[in-house]
Amino acid sequence: MQKQSLTKPDGRRLWLYARDQMPEAGAIPSPLGSEHDAASRHAHLRWHPLRGEWVAYATHRQQRTFLPPAEFNPLAPTKDSRTPTELPAGSYDVAVFENRFPTFSAHPDSPPSAIVDTAPAAGAAEVVVFTQDQTASLGGLPLWHIELLLQVWRDRYIDLGSRDDVKYVLVFENRGVEVGVTLHHPHGQIYAYPFVPPVAARELEQQQTYYAEHRRGLLQSIVEAECRDGRRIILDERRAVAFMPVFARYAYEVWIAPMDPIPSLAQMDDSTCAALARALKGTLLKYDGLWERPFPYVMVFHQAPTDGAPHPEAHLHIEFYPAYRMPGRLKYLAGSELGAGVFTADTLPEEKAAELRGVDVSALVNA
Amino acid sequence: MQKQSLTKPDGRRLWLYARDQMPEAGAIPSPLGSEHDAASRHAHLRWHPLRGEWVAYATHRQQRTFLPPAEFNPLAPTKDSRTPTELPAGSYDVAVFENRFPTFSAHPDSPPSAIVDTAPAAGAAEVVVFTQDQTASLGGLPLWHIELLLQVWRDRYIDLGSRDDVKYVLVFENRGVEVGVTLHHPHGQIYAYPFVPPVAARELEQQQTYYAEHRRGLLQSIVEAECRDGRRIILDERRAVAFMPVFARYAYEVWIAPMDPIPSLAQMDDSTCAALARALKGTLLKYDGLWERPFPYVMVFHQAPTDGAPHPEAHLHIEFYPAYRMPGRLKYLAGSELGAGVFTADTLPEEKAAELRGVDVSALVNA
Repeated sequence: MQKQSLTKPDGRRLWLYARDQMPEAGAIPSPLGSEHDAASRHAHLRWHPLRGEWVAYATHRQQRTFLPPAEFNPLAPTKDSRTPTELPAGSYDVAVFENRFPTFSAHPDSPPSAIVDTAPAAGAAEVVVFTQDQTASLGGLPLWHIELLLQVWRDRYIDLGSRDDVKYVLVFENRGVEVGVTLHHPHGQIYAYPFVPPVAARELEQQQTYYAEHRRGLLQSIVEAECRDGRRIILDERRAVAFMPVFARYAYEVWIAPMDPIPSLAQMDDSTCAALARALKGTLLKYDGLWERPFPYVMVFHQAPTDGAPHPEAHLHIEFYPAYRMPGRLKYLAGSELGAGVFTADTLPEEKAAELRGVDVSALVNA
Repeated sequence: MQKQSLTKPDGRRLWLYARDQMPEAGAIPSPLGSEHDAASRHAHLRWHPLRGEWVAYATHRQQRTFLPPAEFNPLAPTKDSRTPTELPAGSYDVAVFENRFPTFSAHPDSPPSAIVDTAPAAGAAEVVVFTQDQTASLGGLPLWHIELLLQVWRDRYIDLGSRDDVKYVLVFENRGVEVGVTLHHPHGQIYAYPFVPPVAARELEQQQTYYAEHRRGLLQSIVEAECRDGRRIILDERRAVAFMPVFARYAYEVWIAPMDPIPSLAQMDDSTCAALARALKGTLLKYDGLWERPFPYVMVFHQAPTDGAPHPEAHLHIEFYPAYRMPGRLKYLAGSELGAGVFTADTLPEEKAAELRGVDVSALVNA
């Protein structure tokens, strides 16, 4: 993997990655020119004492005045220096840059005082551009490119995680207008939080309890039980497996996990990376093949916090939360889900797993 | 309050409520005729070991074959016995009946075995029809009618809560196609769970910790601090207050709470009921007045569990999760919210509270 670490004229960081040698990047563009976007520093956190969680406020985000014309794509390589995008021309395969409208940033202002605790919105918010091709999709990229992307995520996890103010790194992709996406160029995001967020904290607590009792990982035991049961396995790539967990909350929820219980991307070796890439590509092709249309979802990586403590209980995995429960029927989160935290599914994982397994993508995975 | 407890020909329970005397109900209809819907009993729970929560599966819900023609409204009083709705003709003001497609029910089947723990989906799922008028809205009902509805919710909370298999009663309304509603007749729902659900459990745990330390309620302290601060108060009805909490997760999130820290609706006296009704009606009219269109939301009541233990830490309140963050712009829950549990708001509660406070509904509240 080749990498260039760069700085935009407005002060934001930019990283270019390529499989092969890449020439030194030329002029580094920014739609902001050389102006710093100071507003981002007004973001702050407030403590929700009843839920026991932080809420992030970043009011500049609503003031996004930059409404590009339809033909202008800020995630494409810059073609004309008079209309700079976020990225230079050049021969990179994957690019990462600091979000122009970050909720979390490295040098946040002091928070205002309030009737509850407040804190600076320290951390990072980065955009990961998967490819230069705006018509591509993550699942449609060749295996080598998905492997490279996994290495990029690994690189950002390690780099962000090494910061004292970063306790958890969340790699995710929101895909489709159904989950709020407005830029269709294939991309994901990374949030680095100054605390271990509540969903991760809860999962780790459950995993710690299990680990203390059994001296092995909870997810490892689940993955092994899923493999023995077999009914919910989507793809078995030996070093990694894609499955619909027996306790899936969404109709088409798929998890991808390495068989070895590695805590994070930092411990991913080449053969695990190759297996994860195959499981990821296969799952995504099945999603898109299911109804022969792009399948909208939220994809998140769960892994060990970067809080300095060892996390033998953590087991890297990817979770997909698909937007639809049937063709044309969205899954709405409403009273029970939002007000109580109880998901109600009107399908069984066994049936939906069989549906996805039946989508034949074997010829495409190696393409 | 007048009440009639009835049973439908298919075995489901029905309760009619009225402010004034009501004649004995005539024939009790059901769109099912006298056929029992046995499929509902196949619902079951599976344990999500990583999140440490139950997930409910009710596969009959997706097989809803009953697609009424647009002019047929199952929540209206039956006019023609050849096309029975869920409700009889008659002079009731509010009606409650057991959902035809319940996720939770009183006599669930034994759950299937699985590689995780499973449990019967014991409990209840009820539909609360707010009025006979299908063109009405909750906020448009007269104050006496909203007070009656609060008494109905109280009655169902006490009745369901007295069951050994019910540990928590969730009163809620999903309003608007934006949160998945398909029947537009004004109605809400009640779920009775056989466990204390995770959001309630988390809130109660936080409240217990505070109560143990301060010998007073956490929400009581918050409400008092909000009243002193004043910037986020929407309506002050003396015995009850509507406010946007300083830690609001949604742009237009409003909470309504009685000033006295009563644990549940069971402890609501008449003057508190009157104040809650005024705060509820005023908030809803402000919502609908804000953009001069029906304002979609999820409304949930949080109160004490019905698990037999005393809950001095609990403090009854209503939470609204509005679907929009700006006119025409939905708040999407995506990577950070769903994958980490971290809400990112791009507005400040102080500004949004001022907006709502500025919607003048004083003439309408007493109408």
